[in-house]
Amino acid sequence: MITPSKPASVIDSRAHPSVKRIRLLRLRDERERTGLFYIEGLRFVSLAVDQRAPIEALVVCRPLLVHAFAQKLVRQQRRIGTPVLEVTPAVLHSISLVEDSQGIGAVVRQQWESLARLRPGDELCWIAHQAVRSPGNLGTILRTSDAVGGAGVIALSDAIDPYDPAAVRATMGAMFTQHFVRTNIAEFASWKRRSSFVFVGTSPTAATDYHAIAYRGPAILCMGEERKGLSSDLQALCDIIVRIPMVGRSDSLNLAVATGVLLYELFNQRRNQGLL
Amino acid sequence: MITPSKPASVIDSRAHPSVKRIRLLRLRDERERTGLFYIEGLRFVSLAVDQRAPIEALVVCRPLLVHAFAQKLVRQQRRIGTPVLEVTPAVLHSISLVEDSQGIGAVVRQQWESLARLRPGDELCWIAHQAVRSPGNLGTILRTSDAVGGAGVIALSDAIDPYDPAAVRATMGAMFTQHFVRTNIAEFASWKRRSSFVFVGTSPTAATDYHAIAYRGPAILCMGEERKGLSSDLQALCDIIVRIPMVGRSDSLNLAVATGVLLYELFNQRRNQGLL
Repeated sequence: MITPSKPASVIDSRAHPSVKRIRLLRLRDERERTGLFYIEGLRFVSLAVDQRAPIEALVVCRPLLVHAFAQKLVRQQRRIGTPVLEVTPAVLHSISLVEDSQGIGAVVRQQWESLARLRPGDELCWIAHQAVRSPGNLGTILRTSDAVGGAGVIALSDAIDPYDPAAVRATMGAMFTQHFVRTNIAEFASWKRRSSFVFVGTSPTAATDYHAIAYRGPAILCMGEERKGLSSDLQALCDIIVRIPMVGRSDSLNLAVATGVLLYELFNQRRNQGLL
Repeated sequence: MITPSKPASVIDSRAHPSVKRIRLLRLRDERERTGLFYIEGLRFVSLAVDQRAPIEALVVCRPLLVHAFAQKLVRQQRRIGTPVLEVTPAVLHSISLVEDSQGIGAVVRQQWESLARLRPGDELCWIAHQAVRSPGNLGTILRTSDAVGGAGVIALSDAIDPYDPAAVRATMGAMFTQHFVRTNIAEFASWKRRSSFVFVGTSPTAATDYHAIAYRGPAILCMGEERKGLSSDLQALCDIIVRIPMVGRSDSLNLAVATGVLLYELFNQRRNQGLL
């Protein structure tokens, strides 16, 4: 039976090929293969729309789409031709990783920029990472980078995926203002010779206090992995290496906190110079 | 059969009452009832020993206890009379929440201090929280507090448990330098009238820039919950409310990052004054 509340086009099977493909986007391999990722919740979808992220399809569950703003967003997207996949609550639940997805999600195309075309602009800095063990840390770093006017992340290895669901979630939607570049150390080193960025590294054993120097932007902040810190080949590329002082028993800070402390130092210095 | 490598006293049943009691410490109710918590891994146990945390019992799995330093630690603890529970790898695995516990864990007594007895000392500040949704954030905050010479956390409700396994893990062991007080808003307000601490609150809508004022310690940093921010009754207690500026699309920072940025501002100001 076809009723207006459930037209024939509503997908009611978790095994539907489109639903299975979306669920597969939880896997890194599938995200790499397709160049897509999945976001859920009104905040994320509306920030993606605002920032003109390339939305491939909306996923909508009408019975759960109770916010008037969400309904308007779906109408607008339909009007401009965005494909809309209507699903039942059970099917949406089978896709969702969050408890309350507010009846809306979206499949979005990943955007990667080329290192060769990266030029200093009015951004505060870029953050270069070789590895981030916790996707949540990576997402939190992107959230802070957005807050201070950072450009985004330069991934120096395949070990970094800003499109991991846990990373995406931790950005709280801020990822859509951020830019992503993937490269490797060799290419990064060669690019440095032609670029006018200042490379700032961090190490707990560096002699220079991060708060004692003036950062003459634009900077590339090179951050080490949670446990291993900055690798020696990345240290060798840095124009300066700074230390965040600590007086307690800890020998390191959480990576997202350390990055946040450095980003706010750069941000405060720029604000003090009246550049903002 | 009794062999030297597995004496009769080695617990080989996951259902052993002591093992079951330790596993139950994952639950908040059981931690509250007993006043105990469980830590695992060499780093945690050795920091607990160093900081003279009240260890009730060690849990040791000889076949996994390969580090010479860990073996020495166990011998020393045995010598001073700490009860040692020897268990098989399977039993330790049934207790463990981490992948590699290095054959050692400990049941430790929680320590709570009384608000009435809290006096300003040479600590940088205390951090007061009404609620922290993510135990990982709470642990990360304790880790940063240790790094800057903070005293610890004043929990303004039962919603905060620094002894949650995820909080403990995120401290990376720094929790053993930190102090914990549990109170409520009414008691906190009444105590404020007799105390000489400066109460600093944070809100994204505050007029005062956190970086534009001088913090005359000793301070109590009052932090809001991740989503709701600082409650109005807590705001009313604050001598000053500051804002961490943001220029991106985000309307807030991750709580552990925001706390870290504020802690380092206080820390840098104290360092600039030559007090450290």
